[in-house]
Amino acid sequence: MQLGLVGLGRMGGNMRERLRRAGHEVIGYDPDPQRSDVPGLADMVAKLTMPRVIWIMVPQQVTEDTIDKLIELLHEGDLIIDGGNSKFVDDKPRAQRLAGHGIGYLDVGVSGGVWGLENGYGLMVGGSDEDVAKAQPIFDALKPEGDFGFAHAGPVGAGHYAKMVHNGIEYGLMHAYAEGYELLEAAEYVTDVPAVIKSWRSGTVIRSWLLDLLDRALEADPKLDALRGYAEDTGEGRWTVEEAIRLAVPLNVISASLFARFASRQEDSPAMKAVAALRNEFGGHAVKKETR
Amino acid sequence: MQLGLVGLGRMGGNMRERLRRAGHEVIGYDPDPQRSDVPGLADMVAKLTMPRVIWIMVPQQVTEDTIDKLIELLHEGDLIIDGGNSKFVDDKPRAQRLAGHGIGYLDVGVSGGVWGLENGYGLMVGGSDEDVAKAQPIFDALKPEGDFGFAHAGPVGAGHYAKMVHNGIEYGLMHAYAEGYELLEAAEYVTDVPAVIKSWRSGTVIRSWLLDLLDRALEADPKLDALRGYAEDTGEGRWTVEEAIRLAVPLNVISASLFARFASRQEDSPAMKAVAALRNEFGGHAVKKETR
Amino acid sequence: MQLGLVGLGRMGGNMRERLRRAGHEVIGYDPDPQRSDVPGLADMVAKLTMPRVIWIMVPQQVTEDTIDKLIELLHEGDLIIDGGNSKFVDDKPRAQRLAGHGIGYLDVGVSGGVWGLENGYGLMVGGSDEDVAKAQPIFDALKPEGDFGFAHAGPVGAGHYAKMVHNGIEYGLMHAYAEGYELLEAAEYVTDVPAVIKSWRSGTVIRSWLLDLLDRALEADPKLDALRGYAEDTGEGRWTVEEAIRLAVPLNVISASLFARFASRQEDSPAMKAVAALRNEFGGHAVKKETR
Amino acid sequence: MQLGLVGLGRMGGNMRERLRRAGHEVIGYDPDPQRSDVPGLADMVAKLTMPRVIWIMVPQQVTEDTIDKLIELLHEGDLIIDGGNSKFVDDKPRAQRLAGHGIGYLDVGVSGGVWGLENGYGLMVGGSDEDVAKAQPIFDALKPEGDFGFAHAGPVGAGHYAKMVHNGIEYGLMHAYAEGYELLEAAEYVTDVPAVIKSWRSGTVIRSWLLDLLDRALEADPKLDALRGYAEDTGEGRWTVEEAIRLAVPLNVISASLFARFASRQEDSPAMKAVAALRNEFGGHAVKKETR
Repeated sequence: MQLGLVGLGRMGGNMRERLRRAGHEVIGYDPDPQRSDVPGLADMVAKLTMPRVIWIMVPQQVTEDTIDKLIELLHEGDLIIDGGNSKFVDDKPRAQRLAGHGIGYLDVGVSGGVWGLENGYGLMVGGSDEDVAKAQPIFDALKPEGDFGFAHAGPVGAGHYAKMVHNGIEYGLMHAYAEGYELLEAAEYVTDVPAVIKSWRSGTVIRSWLLDLLDRALEADPKLDALRGYAEDTGEGRWTVEEAIRLAVPLNVISASLFARFASRQEDSPAMKAVAALRNEFGGHAVKKETR
Repeated sequence: MQLGLVGLGRMGGNMRERLRRAGHEVIGYDPDPQRSDVPGLADMVAKLTMPRVIWIMVPQQVTEDTIDKLIELLHEGDLIIDGGNSKFVDDKPRAQRLAGHGIGYLDVGVSGGVWGLENGYGLMVGGSDEDVAKAQPIFDALKPEGDFGFAHAGPVGAGHYAKMVHNGIEYGLMHAYAEGYELLEAAEYVTDVPAVIKSWRSGTVIRSWLLDLLDRALEADPKLDALRGYAEDTGEGRWTVEEAIRLAVPLNVISASLFARFASRQEDSPAMKAVAALRNEFGGHAVKKETR
Repeated sequence: MQLGLVGLGRMGGNMRERLRRAGHEVIGYDPDPQRSDVPGLADMVAKLTMPRVIWIMVPQQVTEDTIDKLIELLHEGDLIIDGGNSKFVDDKPRAQRLAGHGIGYLDVGVSGGVWGLENGYGLMVGGSDEDVAKAQPIFDALKPEGDFGFAHAGPVGAGHYAKMVHNGIEYGLMHAYAEGYELLEAAEYVTDVPAVIKSWRSGTVIRSWLLDLLDRALEADPKLDALRGYAEDTGEGRWTVEEAIRLAVPLNVISASLFARFASRQEDSPAMKAVAALRNEFGGHAVKKETR
Repeated sequence: MQLGLVGLGRMGGNMRERLRRAGHEVIGYDPDPQRSDVPGLADMVAKLTMPRVIWIMVPQQVTEDTIDKLIELLHEGDLIIDGGNSKFVDDKPRAQRLAGHGIGYLDVGVSGGVWGLENGYGLMVGGSDEDVAKAQPIFDALKPEGDFGFAHAGPVGAGHYAKMVHNGIEYGLMHAYAEGYELLEAAEYVTDVPAVIKSWRSGTVIRSWLLDLLDRALEADPKLDALRGYAEDTGEGRWTVEEAIRLAVPLNVISASLFARFASRQEDSPAMKAVAALRNEFGGHAVKKETR
């Protein structure tokens, strides 16, 4: 089928390629003319036969803008799919706004990263059965082969919500492996840490794709010497903990993983300065003076 | 090759079967005559040609006893392999004791649970190159096919240490999925939680064998209604946190997972009683009186 | 000086009494005629000489309503003080709205609970120097004697923000004591736990008012047998963690205390059901079936 | 009464002074002749009338040695008190060894730090009623005035156990304040953080001695600019978490505080290197390269 695809960065570009390999006709638009199939958004829309399906794959900061522009260009019966990392709370108002123009809306959480082109993308979709059906051939082409990798999670908002929780879990999984890795490295027992981690990739309870990637990383750099212990966060981890707070769900593991990222970005810990100050006050414990 | 196998329970019984399918001659002994190939431990030893290799797969409480008995029966040049959940600190003294009798020793962490018979077992081995070489055909038969599932982790103790860390990571992974599951269930956004979890099995960053199992469990019981939120722990999780304390490694995620298991076994939380008492004292906050 | 006081519940009633003892003229209004000094809000306002100072001490759900009504009754130059548990984000818009009517605004975090009548109330104030000066005699009467117990924390919003962080810390402190209490009770070493806790009230590093209260509670009920391990939360703890997320501040201790409250209110843990399900799947570990 | 006091460092020296002010005769011995009242341990013992009471206040590494030497010098009916930071597990074997020589033993947890000279020391004592009675005048002089500051916690071991839990709680309290401090500093709402913290010293729920000390520290250095966010740990925090693991007590707050200290001593976090490596592998996320 035909698809308009807005945003041809690391994710969108690969998705265009995977869809084309599956025989779909993709008209891609990106502000970068090197990537774009057409000079402008209107050109993209003009090339599509009604009813049109447009997939947006842009940074969440420009999603609303992109939708504003599309509203000008689309007609009743068209369908917009937001596959970016939008916050789930924005989906319902957005769907209602589009419904006022007779335009359908689906929110899709997309997982898989740079590996999606070859492996397929995990897709979690929110919206009506009717709208999902319109885009099903696209989903079928993007998802991995086999029984898994696609879910119609619920009404509008459910796709981004499911993706948010996916990413929250991802934080926890990554940190569990990371803690185990650090402990193995710290202990005097295991002399070949990369070999142990490689071995875990099969037969064990903890085998996973993330473990495969950890093995890959250790193959390239067995002590991870080239990296700083520093990690950004892209929003979903924070939203996950915020949702846990709203819903009174204990989330110790995922929040600890999130806080570890925060700490990784600090030059020094103000909290630990306070602890050091207190220890100094009551016990005359030795403190480290700032020398910078 | 020939192997004496002591302990034919859930793990040992399946390992015997997997080894026999691979063409090895296994003489198994178990106190339960229904399972045992021979009437007694001495009979097992008598059936093996020197130098013998004996694999012990018994509960850690009886490991030391079993080794005492084997010392009486074995000769210089024989090799004992402990594949049970022994604590890593016991391995070196045990190896030294056996070395005094000229008997070799390997400690092996075995992962894979009830699925090992078909999938193969993840094996982490501690000991000398020489001893590992003697048992390599056995390891090759037990491990899964392919490049992974076996590591010579280091000297004696490294096998059980690696398995301990494996299980610590396992705690963290399980709890990360569990938190995500609880949040999805608590929220009003995703209406088909099992479908989302099933979809994650492919294409996503968080795909793993544990996730496959969670999907299996939800297929059988979509709300997990039949289960109590209760979990024992078998030692390795505790040892992992103890090691983190010894080595000054921050282990927030794995320890939170361990503590959640502790809490799951409490009828009521004494700590939360104290919190309730304090709130009552300073604020006249409503408290729940005990009615049992 | 003269003060109009709206809300004469547990907190407001005691504050009226403390202010009167200090010689101030307090006209209190409460919907409950048993408590109220006047039949209606308008009567309260009518009794005050301009420029008036009105202190609101009502549940946060009705604060905005109360302010709406007061705007109708007050004049330019009057001052409203919100001493309730409002969320800090609401203060600035509220102040701007009132400024449109020429009415000043202060937000005040009030600590001390039911003990404030005798001990005085800890006060954290947000607003302009000018408005703070207008109410200073009231603050001086409400605060404890001595050098502490009052701070002009910053511009509008700072008072409720400081109180929010105060309560977040309170969660952490309470849970630290609670964990220590539980450990002492669980261990076989200390045979007189209440005596140890009582002893800590003087000379130790951990002496505090909360510890005094814990001792009080244990005097009345040495095993806390009468209480359920159950605790509500009133908002500030959640907001504290949300702020930590917004500002990328690691908050492991306070969030763990908050999550423990959430867990205390669960009949069973859905997360631990998932853990139990996973253990059952991979290891055939014994699980507890639901019998309710 | 007469007391032999071994160890005249920061703690022991002040205790000698406090005891003398109370009218007790203290013969102090320290390897440092500047501090010592006598040239050697034997001289100290020789100056005491039987039955003797000897208080040991030495680093835990030399406690056992000190006791070995004292056994040579003491007689049946004498009493040794260990007021140092010994681990509770050592107390019972030590008491039994001393009992073999007819020498009594008390283990005493001593809190109060450098402030104990003026304020008195919080004392938690383990041992028999009979032995406690022998040293009661010393305890009465060391403890603060008033009803609190002394407990006979239980049999031998209970004193050090109670002190261990005291210190575990101390870790949690300090970190709760520290987190609140960091959040106040990070937020744009409160413009005078030291003023807020000072105000909390009276009237609030979170008032405590540690808070007084935090105010003191901020008076000297309002931004804690002179300190590094670095803290050692002296053992009791680790033992507290180890005990929680042994007894299956969830200890999220105290363990998070301990782990924060561990993290404060790391140049870089190996765990966060692993997280960064994983993010790089699956998402091509930007990583920080090591430049040192």
